[in-house]
Amino acid sequence: MNWKNLDSTAAYKNLCELKGHVNLQDAMSGENGAARVKKYNVPMAAGLTYHYAAKQVDDEILDALQKLADETELTQKYEALYNGAVINTGEKRLVLHQLTRGQLGNPVIADGVDKRAFYTGEQKKAAEFAKKVHTGEITNEKGEKFTTAVQIGIGGSDLGPRAMYLALENWARANGTFKMEARFISNVDPDDAASVLKGIDVSRSLFVLVSKSGTTLETLTNESFVKDALVNAGLDPSKHMVAVTSETSPLANSSDYLAAFFMDDYIGGRYSSTSCVGGAILSLAFGPEVFERFLQGAAAEDDLARNSDVRNNPSMLDALIGVYERNVMGYPATAVLPYSQALSRFPAHLQQLDMESNGKSVNRFGEPVNYVTGPVIFGEPGTNGQHSFYQLLHQGTDIVPLQFVGFKKNQTGMDVQIQGTSSQQKLCANVAAQIMAFACGKQDENPNKSFAGGRPSSIIIGDQLTPEALGALLAHFENKVMFQGFVWNLNSFDQEGVQLGKVLAKRVLAHETEGALRAFSDLLEI
Amino acid sequence: MNWKNLDSTAAYKNLCELKGHVNLQDAMSGENGAARVKKYNVPMAAGLTYHYAAKQVDDEILDALQKLADETELTQKYEALYNGAVINTGEKRLVLHQLTRGQLGNPVIADGVDKRAFYTGEQKKAAEFAKKVHTGEITNEKGEKFTTAVQIGIGGSDLGPRAMYLALENWARANGTFKMEARFISNVDPDDAASVLKGIDVSRSLFVLVSKSGTTLETLTNESFVKDALVNAGLDPSKHMVAVTSETSPLANSSDYLAAFFMDDYIGGRYSSTSCVGGAILSLAFGPEVFERFLQGAAAEDDLARNSDVRNNPSMLDALIGVYERNVMGYPATAVLPYSQALSRFPAHLQQLDMESNGKSVNRFGEPVNYVTGPVIFGEPGTNGQHSFYQLLHQGTDIVPLQFVGFKKNQTGMDVQIQGTSSQQKLCANVAAQIMAFACGKQDENPNKSFAGGRPSSIIIGDQLTPEALGALLAHFENKVMFQGFVWNLNSFDQEGVQLGKVLAKRVLAHETEGALRAFSDLLEI
Repeated sequence: MNWKNLDSTAAYKNLCELKGHVNLQDAMSGENGAARVKKYNVPMAAGLTYHYAAKQVDDEILDALQKLADETELTQKYEALYNGAVINTGEKRLVLHQLTRGQLGNPVIADGVDKRAFYTGEQKKAAEFAKKVHTGEITNEKGEKFTTAVQIGIGGSDLGPRAMYLALENWARANGTFKMEARFISNVDPDDAASVLKGIDVSRSLFVLVSKSGTTLETLTNESFVKDALVNAGLDPSKHMVAVTSETSPLANSSDYLAAFFMDDYIGGRYSSTSCVGGAILSLAFGPEVFERFLQGAAAEDDLARNSDVRNNPSMLDALIGVYERNVMGYPATAVLPYSQALSRFPAHLQQLDMESNGKSVNRFGEPVNYVTGPVIFGEPGTNGQHSFYQLLHQGTDIVPLQFVGFKKNQTGMDVQIQGTSSQQKLCANVAAQIMAFACGKQDENPNKSFAGGRPSSIIIGDQLTPEALGALLAHFENKVMFQGFVWNLNSFDQEGVQLGKVLAKRVLAHETEGALRAFSDLLEI
Repeated sequence: MNWKNLDSTAAYKNLCELKGHVNLQDAMSGENGAARVKKYNVPMAAGLTYHYAAKQVDDEILDALQKLADETELTQKYEALYNGAVINTGEKRLVLHQLTRGQLGNPVIADGVDKRAFYTGEQKKAAEFAKKVHTGEITNEKGEKFTTAVQIGIGGSDLGPRAMYLALENWARANGTFKMEARFISNVDPDDAASVLKGIDVSRSLFVLVSKSGTTLETLTNESFVKDALVNAGLDPSKHMVAVTSETSPLANSSDYLAAFFMDDYIGGRYSSTSCVGGAILSLAFGPEVFERFLQGAAAEDDLARNSDVRNNPSMLDALIGVYERNVMGYPATAVLPYSQALSRFPAHLQQLDMESNGKSVNRFGEPVNYVTGPVIFGEPGTNGQHSFYQLLHQGTDIVPLQFVGFKKNQTGMDVQIQGTSSQQKLCANVAAQIMAFACGKQDENPNKSFAGGRPSSIIIGDQLTPEALGALLAHFENKVMFQGFVWNLNSFDQEGVQLGKVLAKRVLAHETEGALRAFSDLLEI
């Protein structure tokens, strides 16, 4: 494989010559716009479709993106990744989160183990454990059923699983598969744990402690906080806790836990929602069958990402359009705007996924790159965002590309008719309207009421946010970020940028500081 | 007063010549750094302090910012604003949110009414209503006390009040002033209301309907959804609802509500947390005395904003440093990072406050400006963010200025000691460490482990997040945004950018669409 910097490729130079090639206002107006909507879309898994008519592309740009995909060997690199190449070069690790979905590529043998069998085996353990909790075979000391599961984890052990739980909670309730409430403790701020514990019955709660290394400061601190609460309530913590960790961690074989489910260093935290990190808590909350359906959606989407034709590979196309917007058009941020309250924390998960993977200044060989890489990612659900930061998106001085998500049906099946339409129809009407308002704008005699337009967006449309659709959505963005990392020639699977803060914080706590750090520490009375 | 564009001022030209004047790595290293921490801070209200040692400023830059403040007449414009000038020129309205705090400036008579008396009178009505709910003088039809208050509103009627509720919930519980749970319904997605209603006892719930115009689509739709639920439970909706609206709205004098509390067009939604929009729900949740303390913190901060000396006016200084970073240094985004779980939704509120106020391309006279205005604002609480997007902040290709907030004490008083330090100390150690990691970075033989540094941040430090401190924090950012609007010569108090989407959505629902909008509407089955 050829790993080369973006600015050393012929395809990128070609793409730069097409800067501003498509006038979005013209392209999306009139019947030409309708034709684009019909033409510029690509099916995803689980009944989703990626629509990019309102992006600044046309056939010529798509051809240029195809050349870039070919020259940077995107699908070959993806194939190498899921077949077990050492893609995480900085840490000399394989990158195997796709294997947790169980279906892609050749067997990967590492450390003497068939990794697919390992991941699916651990998930099976978690599924069996969850079933025993649901049937009452595993209970608290009094023999009462557990009613609440509480995940203790931070970063990838929190954001992804939390976003997925919120995404499926209403769906599970409406479909009779809701088993247990889930709660999440993450922050080292003691008020986080205190607040969660205040809202639950600890005697009926099962805590899922998630730390790959078994040494994460926040997670161990919160474990201790929770153990104190259990002991104070006259309970035995070891009867209320399970661990999700690596086999080599201090948590792996401890009598402190009812059970332990394993992952390994080949699954990055931000890519771990489909491993036991998401699997334990989601199987407890909704049953293992629902989690299995979620994995199937992700696996089907992973499969689509193998297509070397950009027009038929939604995540690769999304990635390449993003590179065009970032490097050629020069847009510094991207907003993720799901029109679904269930996806309220999905943007926060994508923020980690994207910014932690590709927020880097050196390439995979440690050499500085001369082009911008990962953008700032932010977002809130629509229609809420419309009444907040959309003002800047419509009329601000910077252009921010947009990623919409919308579903035809809501999850609960409950709705209300006002002025002849349902809430769900109003929700959908709003997202359709926004796409066009951003693309075409509107001239007005009063410049304050004018909209320049020319603001690109895509939308993923689905029938309903089911477990399969959620899995497909998650895998789409994971693969998009991976492909962008390949184009930018980055290692998207390490996160050295989080280390320095950790080191300095330890030094503060040990009172080994001087200068400004000591001065700030004194001000905070540490 | 002289209203002029930023790029027509002499002070701005002078400031541009100071681009990159301060090398942050050098400035913050060694004893020089400690001296800066001691020197570069300014007291705020409620015991808070704004620290800007880790910003790219020195005395020369501060002098240049002072000249910019003087030439753009910032404090004069502020004074004009709170004394009732028509600052919102687009809509020809006064801007009076500071008057809801009751203390600044001359009496403002508008529409034949003393506006300060009006706002404080309405707040008194809300306070008395809340007290009657707490004492049981106002109950449900069975004579049972209300246990839950549910705000129905969107945008400024949701984000600010929700953020403030979450900010004080633990504090109120720990201080014996917690009266009722609050919940919030905002999205037109019917699953939002369905989910909130599922989690509460509607027979013991009081709904606070908030819409200034009384015509907000989302809010009226959710009101209808809630009324259906009340009727289905055999309850009389008019015994479970109050309205917060303007006196001229259709909700103002309706027998559908137990009571109505009024605001007016001189309070923008995003500036309405200190009006009845925040006052009704927060007084119900925590008691009117707590809300009064919150107002006092805001009023004290407003008072500090009158100082024409930038070194003694924290919000004006924060604003001017932001302009230097945005217009001179060219940074496109700003992250808000409170090290307090209670402030988990404070960044979402600031996102609206800032991006909706200053995300504009025309000046207050409707003329296009030739410089960038409001940045993208995003953020999550620390330490959570450290395990997520901080990778990009430390090692990404763009520099993102940072706004930290930290407190010496937590709110609940609960904590745990691990490895010799408390969680709260760990939290504080982390924020101190981050400031220095961003400012100074660290060279490493392995470029992948190198940190360039030079990434500016400020921190607001307080003793504890009390109602007064929260009020001061809120007013600080409101005033910062206002001052930036003055510098950029914008009208920060309208939001014409949200209109086009509304118009098009109505057209979709009426099936009056063609071209791409019809095509997208068909895909979404509207």
